[in-house]
Amino acid sequence: MGEFALIEEVRRRCAIARDDVALGIGDDAALLQPRDGEELAVSMDTLVAGVHFPPGTAPFDIGWKALAVNLSDLAAMGAEPAWAMLALTLPSIDADWLAGFCDGFGALAREHRVALVGGDTTRGPLAITVTVHGFVPRGAALRRDGARAGDRIFVSGHPGDAAAGLACVLGATLPRAPSGDDREYLLQRLNRPVPRVSLGLALRGIAGAAIDVSDGLSQDLGHIGARSGLGAILRADRLPVSAPLARVGDVEQLLRWQLAGGDDYELCCAVPPERIAQARAAADRCGIAFTEIGTFDHGSGVRVVAADGSEIAAPRGGWEHFAA
Amino acid sequence: MGEFALIEEVRRRCAIARDDVALGIGDDAALLQPRDGEELAVSMDTLVAGVHFPPGTAPFDIGWKALAVNLSDLAAMGAEPAWAMLALTLPSIDADWLAGFCDGFGALAREHRVALVGGDTTRGPLAITVTVHGFVPRGAALRRDGARAGDRIFVSGHPGDAAAGLACVLGATLPRAPSGDDREYLLQRLNRPVPRVSLGLALRGIAGAAIDVSDGLSQDLGHIGARSGLGAILRADRLPVSAPLARVGDVEQLLRWQLAGGDDYELCCAVPPERIAQARAAADRCGIAFTEIGTFDHGSGVRVVAADGSEIAAPRGGWEHFAA
Repeated sequence: MGEFALIEEVRRRCAIARDDVALGIGDDAALLQPRDGEELAVSMDTLVAGVHFPPGTAPFDIGWKALAVNLSDLAAMGAEPAWAMLALTLPSIDADWLAGFCDGFGALAREHRVALVGGDTTRGPLAITVTVHGFVPRGAALRRDGARAGDRIFVSGHPGDAAAGLACVLGATLPRAPSGDDREYLLQRLNRPVPRVSLGLALRGIAGAAIDVSDGLSQDLGHIGARSGLGAILRADRLPVSAPLARVGDVEQLLRWQLAGGDDYELCCAVPPERIAQARAAADRCGIAFTEIGTFDHGSGVRVVAADGSEIAAPRGGWEHFAA
Repeated sequence: MGEFALIEEVRRRCAIARDDVALGIGDDAALLQPRDGEELAVSMDTLVAGVHFPPGTAPFDIGWKALAVNLSDLAAMGAEPAWAMLALTLPSIDADWLAGFCDGFGALAREHRVALVGGDTTRGPLAITVTVHGFVPRGAALRRDGARAGDRIFVSGHPGDAAAGLACVLGATLPRAPSGDDREYLLQRLNRPVPRVSLGLALRGIAGAAIDVSDGLSQDLGHIGARSGLGAILRADRLPVSAPLARVGDVEQLLRWQLAGGDDYELCCAVPPERIAQARAAADRCGIAFTEIGTFDHGSGVRVVAADGSEIAAPRGGWEHFAA
């Protein structure tokens, strides 16, 4: 299979028709028709083999995740996904691998009606870069800088699951050995993150700020705080924990996974007190767990406290690619 | 320097203000304002170290080229560049390297008023993926499928220079050893391709089809033919040759560089006979060499012929990443 056959295969397996694509894969550039009067939200994320996914990860999961991490960014802006570009760097062409990758990418793309409109294929160490585009009415995006003192901090889903899944893959010793089902659940959470697109859309006009939790809840929450000029107080006892995660972790390890684990792709939001009921109702309609875990306040930094208000020495930092 | 300092450094060195950027680097996604009623042209290209540029290439040149190859795609559509996203994968952070890279990227970005609005930085084998966005009035883009039988084939600049430059870098024996100045010229053509943006814009409404010549003139010309349902007849004696290239090549090697060399980033166009004068005038205004090199005709494939019409066994194929 040569480069052109490869491109044709990707097109065939990932094709989704949209009226706003005037010209898709196959020319020097795609020609797209943005919505008049709306803003275009654009995000780009790279996955590198051995850095963002362990060796041996199934190609379906790599394809899924490459799109999911990007859609998660659009979700955090409250944008409606529309188009994707895919840059695929492969050491060699393996038809089975490619079919699996496209099936994973395509499955999630179809779910969100995202058209793959172009990209590039190159030879080199395995890496995938995706650029996604979505629509959001002018001024309606959920930015990081819109939190106000007194806003409550909410998080979707169950941060920490993916980090425990990674520990399973890497053969780390967990505080308690997982059952087969629990292991399966945690791996699924690592390999098939579900971008919270519907929740992001539902929170437009309700949440004051949002971010997607990809590098660890504590660090990402800190970004909202920094951009909004606020500090954050996080209640450790209120952090949502999935039943499988609770079964494999002890208190200390749980907190580390929940606060600094990375790879969660949940949404963390600032919700003004008067809109909490609205926010909860929006999350309910989406069928997504949505938990109040703290408060934004004047100051700076993220403080983690117990139920009685006493500060907890929480795991600092999060996933930073060049920190190691 | 950590990941956040790196992002700040890139932003500082590549910042360009545009009114249509509502939110640039620093949130989950950029927020952009496309032009109402115009189409958005989007292209994405990856450069991998050791594949798209030889080891030892100056970081300035890598930064320049990473943007140039993308702008060349917009030029080939007749689109006006606006925004770029940059995914930078680095084995480690080297502040000097990064400064050079950003200076090269930024120099070309400023020339074309392209705002860097987002991207990603990751750790891994050196690779750069850029996504560019440009504007084109609806229906005005120069596509590959718009050539008609009888259209003349034009090419900008002097294809083959970059391939000879690469031969110099790789230490290949050239038919004739280059002078210092000629070597310098050929290396410049390899490392600092000049995207033909002004020419692409000037040819809107004049050329029927266009492509950017990145993988070898013969192969890329063949793409216009294939998409337009036509064959192409290329006059070998009419191929433009730069004086330095003429001095280092013999007849056979010249033809190989010109037809199958790759890395030219020139525009190859189909021009209807009645618009040839207009096309030439447009290229003159841009100060870009623009040479008639053949004709599109019924049939398929690319035939290379001599002045007397006899067919020449020309070098087939071009740069295909997975062909080797």
